[in-house]
Amino acid sequence: MPQSPIGPELQRLIDLLAKMPGLGPRSAKRAALYLLKKREPVMRPLAFALDDAAQKVKACSICGNWDSIDPCAICADPERSGAVICVVQDVGDLWALERAGAHKGRYHVLGGLLSPLDGIGPEELNIGGLIARAGDDAVKEVILALAATVDGQTTAHYLTERLEETGVTVTRLSQGVPVGGELDYLDEGTIAAAMKTRRPA
Amino acid sequence: MPQSPIGPELQRLIDLLAKMPGLGPRSAKRAALYLLKKREPVMRPLAFALDDAAQKVKACSICGNWDSIDPCAICADPERSGAVICVVQDVGDLWALERAGAHKGRYHVLGGLLSPLDGIGPEELNIGGLIARAGDDAVKEVILALAATVDGQTTAHYLTERLEETGVTVTRLSQGVPVGGELDYLDEGTIAAAMKTRRPA
Repeated sequence: MPQSPIGPELQRLIDLLAKMPGLGPRSAKRAALYLLKKREPVMRPLAFALDDAAQKVKACSICGNWDSIDPCAICADPERSGAVICVVQDVGDLWALERAGAHKGRYHVLGGLLSPLDGIGPEELNIGGLIARAGDDAVKEVILALAATVDGQTTAHYLTERLEETGVTVTRLSQGVPVGGELDYLDEGTIAAAMKTRRPA
Repeated sequence: MPQSPIGPELQRLIDLLAKMPGLGPRSAKRAALYLLKKREPVMRPLAFALDDAAQKVKACSICGNWDSIDPCAICADPERSGAVICVVQDVGDLWALERAGAHKGRYHVLGGLLSPLDGIGPEELNIGGLIARAGDDAVKEVILALAATVDGQTTAHYLTERLEETGVTVTRLSQGVPVGGELDYLDEGTIAAAMKTRRPA
């Protein structure tokens, strides 16, 4: 085994970069080389931005969204309806819904899904806060925008039961054929769901 | 256009992450979310490692390799032959050759390839240092390990001419069928090159 040609400082940087999703050991090396070539325009600003965000970005005390202000910009926005709360697994899902421009109300970020196999129970998630919020008379509807997976279904089922006591209307995203999707390439489960919930043309 | 749900500190981090090779705008968001969840084990250490490497990692004054010591570990290694210098485009290529364990001599990193179209002439590359090193009597061979592209060939041709005056032997990597490569999937140029330089079986 030949000695590594990469010094310890550089190796530590590569090892940390390789932990990021989307970067493997080889692309982390490429990223490190790129950064060393762009020290002033990218590398040092990135070091600062990481430190800055690690310090300032916090979970919103109301909904769990990440922002540098608390309550977050969405919870603080008077133009958004407080009557509808959309429940998501993660902040990334909140961003996806915002990209789609599909929701004009508030959010609630669970921080994960129930997963008995992984030891994630209701206490591990931001569920108490949701029940408390849904108990407010101003809240009329809770939309469960969770993944169409076993864990997502389990979590939706659990939340539906827990939310019953609050008297709020609980809805879920509909399942069906994705926009632009061809039937030939769809799995049987999706086709069956789309068939079952078919609507007048 | 709805207002972005992402605060300025987080957006700046995402924008910088998205500049890295291998990460696009969407995977940069995923990386930012991952980092925020791993503040102590990954995010802050990464900020430190970036700053540390930006400060300490420098180009070796002899060969152009990146290391935190100068001369670099390879130039300083008494077990490596100073008689053979392998010329590479970039530090990433040096790492690839070291991974292969294919070269026991020293290196010389050009920092790019000649590219008249991009305005990259001999002055932009670390060529003067190579000619000076090759002029040393101890140096017997210079291996041109450059890409098999137009710019790579142009650079190899130019270096071969420039090195003529030093009396050193100049060689190139051979071209041919990659190990594990199937002929059916190879381009015509590679097949023609492998045929032309065929050897007794």
